[in-house]
Amino acid sequence: MSDQTEAAVAPVQAFEPPYYVAVFTAVPTEDRSGYGETNARMEDLVKEVPGYLGADHAQTPGGLSITVGYFRDADALTQWRSNAEHRAAQERGRAEWYQSYTLHVAKVERSHGFKRA
Amino acid sequence: MSDQTEAAVAPVQAFEPPYYVAVFTAVPTEDRSGYGETNARMEDLVKEVPGYLGADHAQTPGGLSITVGYFRDADALTQWRSNAEHRAAQERGRAEWYQSYTLHVAKVERSHGFKRA
Repeated sequence: MSDQTEAAVAPVQAFEPPYYVAVFTAVPTEDRSGYGETNARMEDLVKEVPGYLGADHAQTPGGLSITVGYFRDADALTQWRSNAEHRAAQERGRAEWYQSYTLHVAKVERSHGFKRA
Repeated sequence: MSDQTEAAVAPVQAFEPPYYVAVFTAVPTEDRSGYGETNARMEDLVKEVPGYLGADHAQTPGGLSITVGYFRDADALTQWRSNAEHRAAQERGRAEWYQSYTLHVAKVERSHGFKRA
């Protein structure tokens, strides 16, 4: 693997606490119609929220999907949560794209990172 | 797919806040020797910690792995964090199994779940 390939996959860094995480664990349905476009739009839109720090995502094929969003403070999360386009996407998610999901919003007290030398 | 298959994949439920999440996002190395056994042992061991509530895991093939552990309080996390066998496994993880990782420990303030009827 080239250095470039390895650099492309890395978790979001550990920030200085306090900051917030929004942990979204979901089981997708088999209906993916419209999901890709909406997801890409949400990824663009959340970047406009002041205090948005980034997100990590992993998905087991045929299994669980986990997205962790990082936010500087509760205000940033409130702004993202109340965004009208985001709310419409959430509603469509419940109607079409998710079998089940859980959301945990939490204030980070401690964090650290490791990177192989 | 049978109902049984669908029931097998579900995120851990939303608990009544406050509780804690430990979010571990990692990029694995290609060296998986010994990982499966150690991981299985850690999954057994953490269940012995009073206040351990469960864990969610997802992994993108060739990409990011995310594990979210749920704990009732900070004491439960401290106990798990100071477990000698767990510490030895973490050390081996840094030496062999992880290219990079980030750990975020956070207190949940708000949570909710959704399940398709």
